[in-house]
Amino acid sequence: MEIKFVTTGGTIDKAYSKSKGTYNFDIMSPSICSILKNANPNFEHEVVSVAKKDSLDLTEDDRQLIFDSCKRIENKRIIITHGTDTMIETARKLSTLKNKIIVLVGSSQPERFKETDADFNVGCAVGAINVLSSGIYIAMNGRVYRWDECRKLDSGHFVEKQGQNKPL
Amino acid sequence: MEIKFVTTGGTIDKAYSKSKGTYNFDIMSPSICSILKNANPNFEHEVVSVAKKDSLDLTEDDRQLIFDSCKRIENKRIIITHGTDTMIETARKLSTLKNKIIVLVGSSQPERFKETDADFNVGCAVGAINVLSSGIYIAMNGRVYRWDECRKLDSGHFVEKQGQNKPL
Amino acid sequence: MEIKFVTTGGTIDKAYSKSKGTYNFDIMSPSICSILKNANPNFEHEVVSVAKKDSLDLTEDDRQLIFDSCKRIENKRIIITHGTDTMIETARKLSTLKNKIIVLVGSSQPERFKETDADFNVGCAVGAINVLSSGIYIAMNGRVYRWDECRKLDSGHFVEKQGQNKPL
Amino acid sequence: MEIKFVTTGGTIDKAYSKSKGTYNFDIMSPSICSILKNANPNFEHEVVSVAKKDSLDLTEDDRQLIFDSCKRIENKRIIITHGTDTMIETARKLSTLKNKIIVLVGSSQPERFKETDADFNVGCAVGAINVLSSGIYIAMNGRVYRWDECRKLDSGHFVEKQGQNKPL
Repeated sequence: MEIKFVTTGGTIDKAYSKSKGTYNFDIMSPSICSILKNANPNFEHEVVSVAKKDSLDLTEDDRQLIFDSCKRIENKRIIITHGTDTMIETARKLSTLKNKIIVLVGSSQPERFKETDADFNVGCAVGAINVLSSGIYIAMNGRVYRWDECRKLDSGHFVEKQGQNKPL
Repeated sequence: MEIKFVTTGGTIDKAYSKSKGTYNFDIMSPSICSILKNANPNFEHEVVSVAKKDSLDLTEDDRQLIFDSCKRIENKRIIITHGTDTMIETARKLSTLKNKIIVLVGSSQPERFKETDADFNVGCAVGAINVLSSGIYIAMNGRVYRWDECRKLDSGHFVEKQGQNKPL
Repeated sequence: MEIKFVTTGGTIDKAYSKSKGTYNFDIMSPSICSILKNANPNFEHEVVSVAKKDSLDLTEDDRQLIFDSCKRIENKRIIITHGTDTMIETARKLSTLKNKIIVLVGSSQPERFKETDADFNVGCAVGAINVLSSGIYIAMNGRVYRWDECRKLDSGHFVEKQGQNKPL
Repeated sequence: MEIKFVTTGGTIDKAYSKSKGTYNFDIMSPSICSILKNANPNFEHEVVSVAKKDSLDLTEDDRQLIFDSCKRIENKRIIITHGTDTMIETARKLSTLKNKIIVLVGSSQPERFKETDADFNVGCAVGAINVLSSGIYIAMNGRVYRWDECRKLDSGHFVEKQGQNKPL
C-alpha cells in the first residue's frame, strides 16, 4: 500500500508564534510528519505541502492547486490534511477526479497540543483508506463519510445529512 | 454507528508503578477512554474491560472470556485493545463468530507515553470499522489485515503473509 | 511551606478555540492546576485567578488588581503566572510590597502544547522560592533574576542587564 | 551561570522496550536533553551520563563513579538526575565534596510519559541552584532539602525529617 499525503494548513498544522503571541503555520514540517513518525507505519508514503492556510482563507486558486496536485499524483490513495471549515468545498472541487481514493481529514485541536484529535483522525483516514473504493471522503469524529453525504455543525462536529445512513 | 470496545490489557494500557519501579495495569480507566475523550467521537460507544494482562500471559480461559464477551455483545462492531504478541491467537479463537466486524488493535508504546502509536492505531481501527464487512481483522502499523492474512515480525511490525496482497 | 499562585493570563494559559480558529483563555482551569497535579507537590498551595489576558493587554487597572491581590495575601510566598511581554512592568508595580517573596513566571509556548517550557519554568519558580529571601523576582529560561536586574530580548529570552552578574 | 548535568538512570530516564514488554534505559539520549530542549535555557550546560540503572541497583562502585565525576567537574553547579529510592545514599556519598552546589533530582513518572513530574522537578532543581550556596541538596515534590534533613516516605513523597523546618 502506498499513500500520498497532501497538506494544506488548517488547525491540525497550527503552531504558536511567541513573537506574535498567536497561532501560525511557521513550522518546520507539517504535523503529519510527527504523526507518521509515532505511528511507525508499514506502508509507503510521501508528504507534499500545497498550502499553509486556515481553510477559511483558501482561495479558488488554492483549491485549483490542490486539485492539480491530486491529479498529478500517480498513487491511487491520497489523504489531504485540511482545515475543517471548508473541507466540503475542497472535496466538491475534487469530485470530478476518478479512479482515486481521496480522504480529507483535519482536527479540532492542533496536533502540537497534548490533548488533540489529530493522531486519531489521521489514523481513521488511514484505516479507512485500506478498505475504501474510489471516491472522495471526509474522515472526522471517528466517522468516514462520502463528501456529499455529510455536513458540519456549528459545534464543529461532522454528521450525516438527514436521511443519509447507508453503509459506505 | 455504534462501537463496543473490549479491553484486555497489553502495552497500550500500561501505566508506571512508582512503588514497584516497573510497568503495570493499575490504572483507573483503560487507555481507550483517554483516546476517545480526545477524539470527540460522533458514534455511540461503550467500553468493557475483560482482562488486564500482557498478551503473553493470556490463558485459554482468558480467551474464552473474550470470546464469550464478544458473543454476548449485540453490536455488530467490536474493537478489542490487545497486546500485540498473541493478537493473532485471540483472533483465531474469535474466528467462528459470524455476522460481526471485530478489529483487534494494540500499540508498541503505551498510550500514556508522549510518543505513542496508540491514538493513531485506534483511529485506524475505527476508520476501518466504518467500512469493513463482517470478519475478524487486525489493525496495526497503519494497515488493516484479515486476521489470517498477516503475521508479526520480530521487529514488532505486522506484515501480510507472503503472497497475500488482495484488497480487503 | 505554603505558596499562593496568582494567574493573570499570558501565553502559558492559552487554549485553542476551534470555533474562532485562534487562541483564547476560555479554559476551565488555569494551566497552573495541571502543572501542580503532575508535580505532586509537598507544599500547601492555593490558586487565585486575577486576570485572563495577553500581558500586552493588561491595563493599569489590571496591575492595580494584581497589586491589591498580592497585598491581601497573607502568605509570604507568591508565584504569579504572567505573559512575558510586560512581566517587568508588573514586577515594578509590585516592588513597593515588602516582606514577601514574589516570583513572576510565564512560558514561551502554552502549557497545553506537547513541547512547552511551562512545567519547567513553574518548577524553576517553585525551586527558587524555597530559597529566596524577600523581593520581587522573575524566573524565565532557567534563570532567576531580581526584577530590576533583567531585560527581555526581542528573541523572547530574558537576560541580565549589562554588568549585573552578582549572585542572588 | 553554568550547570553540569550528571545522569545516572532512575525512573526519570525509563523508556519502554516493545520487544521485552517492560521498561529499559536503551534510549538514545537521557531525558534531561528533552527537558532542556523544551526549556530553552539561558545558561551554559553540559550533560554527562555516568550510569543507567534503577537506583536500587546502583552499587558502591557506581556511587564512587558518581563521586569521581562530580569531583572532576570544574563547574560549581551540578545537577544529578537519579532514581528516588537511594537518592539520599548517593547524597551522603557526595557530602564530603566542598565548594560545590549539588542538587539531586528525579521523578515519580518517567519523563516520556504525558503526565510526568520530570520537567517540573528539574525546573525546581535549576531554579534552586540559581540561589543556593554550597552543599548537597535534594529537589523533589516542589521542595528543596539539604540531603540530611529529608526522608522518603513509602508513598514516594520526600518530606523534612521531624523537627527540621528551618529555611535553606
